[in-house]
Amino acid sequence: MTSSDANPTAPNPTAAVLIIGNEILSGRTKDANLPHIAEKLGEIGIRLREARVVPDVPEEIVDALNALRARYTYVFTTGGIGPTHDDITSECVARAFGVPLERNADAVERLERHYAGRQQLNEARLRMANVPAGGILVDNPISAAPGYQIGNVFVLAGVPNIMQAMLDSVLPRLRGGPPIHARTVSCELAEGRLAADLGALQERYPQLEIGSYPYFRRGDFGVSLVLRGTDEAALDTAAEELCGIVRTLGGTPALTIGAKG
Amino acid sequence: MTSSDANPTAPNPTAAVLIIGNEILSGRTKDANLPHIAEKLGEIGIRLREARVVPDVPEEIVDALNALRARYTYVFTTGGIGPTHDDITSECVARAFGVPLERNADAVERLERHYAGRQQLNEARLRMANVPAGGILVDNPISAAPGYQIGNVFVLAGVPNIMQAMLDSVLPRLRGGPPIHARTVSCELAEGRLAADLGALQERYPQLEIGSYPYFRRGDFGVSLVLRGTDEAALDTAAEELCGIVRTLGGTPALTIGAKG
Repeated sequence: MTSSDANPTAPNPTAAVLIIGNEILSGRTKDANLPHIAEKLGEIGIRLREARVVPDVPEEIVDALNALRARYTYVFTTGGIGPTHDDITSECVARAFGVPLERNADAVERLERHYAGRQQLNEARLRMANVPAGGILVDNPISAAPGYQIGNVFVLAGVPNIMQAMLDSVLPRLRGGPPIHARTVSCELAEGRLAADLGALQERYPQLEIGSYPYFRRGDFGVSLVLRGTDEAALDTAAEELCGIVRTLGGTPALTIGAKG
Repeated sequence: MTSSDANPTAPNPTAAVLIIGNEILSGRTKDANLPHIAEKLGEIGIRLREARVVPDVPEEIVDALNALRARYTYVFTTGGIGPTHDDITSECVARAFGVPLERNADAVERLERHYAGRQQLNEARLRMANVPAGGILVDNPISAAPGYQIGNVFVLAGVPNIMQAMLDSVLPRLRGGPPIHARTVSCELAEGRLAADLGALQERYPQLEIGSYPYFRRGDFGVSLVLRGTDEAALDTAAEELCGIVRTLGGTPALTIGAKG
């Protein structure tokens, strides 16, 4: 348990994601898990505050995990829990927590059921039942090999559909906060024309996070102005003001609920 | 300059990417820069060893940048160099290096040329000419506002096509190493069947990095076994051995040059 876990009245639980795998750092694989985790956590009021990508190197994984779990309410790791030699997440998590890595009987049973009559439950596959002592299993409805929770850390698969299923099953365990809502005002004005008024709007609404994201697509360009926060009334008022600013500058604002657009 | 820069004979230059922006951590924007930077650096023998995503919070940016620039040969930052209030990268880079943030005359000229007769070069846009003292400009052929290099840090735009153009112009400045090559052996076997032989192959080729990446697509499943390293002869021999392993286990290997497949 981290110090933030010890205070259940803390208003905004936080999270970090630790992406483990050479394939992300070589550019071979484009991570698809971070945006998904970010959205799901945002819906229950947990703010993702940091993400790190580290290679399959034990010291790197251990150090990053220890840094993140000390700072944030929750940490989600993705990747490195399969049966091959490059799957070293569990031994690193055990090292980070200073506990032994044990063959988990419940996990072995799940693997036995999954492989029965299909394929051999060999030693490589049994490695997927190795869990740091004290770990609580996380269901894997797709390929059986479980993830787990230990302390404030959730160890999840790297394959996106498996990771998503695992995340769905752990979300109810988490202490959420007020959900984070968003409004997006898009327009064809250049960022530089809006900047001064936008900065002043941010100062009037310090409880909101206002971001400006230019886009260039299909020959079109413009900017999406995103307002985020837990206070929906303030969001609505600020979004209206922002539409007014856009109109005053000669633009045509398009307001949408949510952070897309 | 870092200690690794001070040693030009170090065989493998390293790099880290620092992705700056709330939009990545909220899930609104899916980062597209990391895989591109990873691939381009790999081609010239620079290994990407870590990536971090931090929010638009000065202390977070300063701390992450200082941690990364002390550890790796090069650091590439993306995002936060536009004209709006949430663009705070340059002031943070100046703080991290302990130098003043100055209005760069060359950058102002570039902006003047770009905006002349089109739009007003207002104060918000002029902020994009603020560069930490000692910074060397990086061309932006798309929207003029430059990136820059300071020490071993390259400060680049977040918008992918601008980032890519900036990166292209800085690659020739970098000290590369032997290019990293890859071979991929794909087959329809399950990872768990291959794991033991694959681990033994990794032990026989410690100079290569062998990764196992299962895939599930269009109802198909299988695994891509990726071998990476600078020694092409070893790559070819190891890939041949791996094809033999797959065949022995009853699979049909498909060998491709490169890390895709």
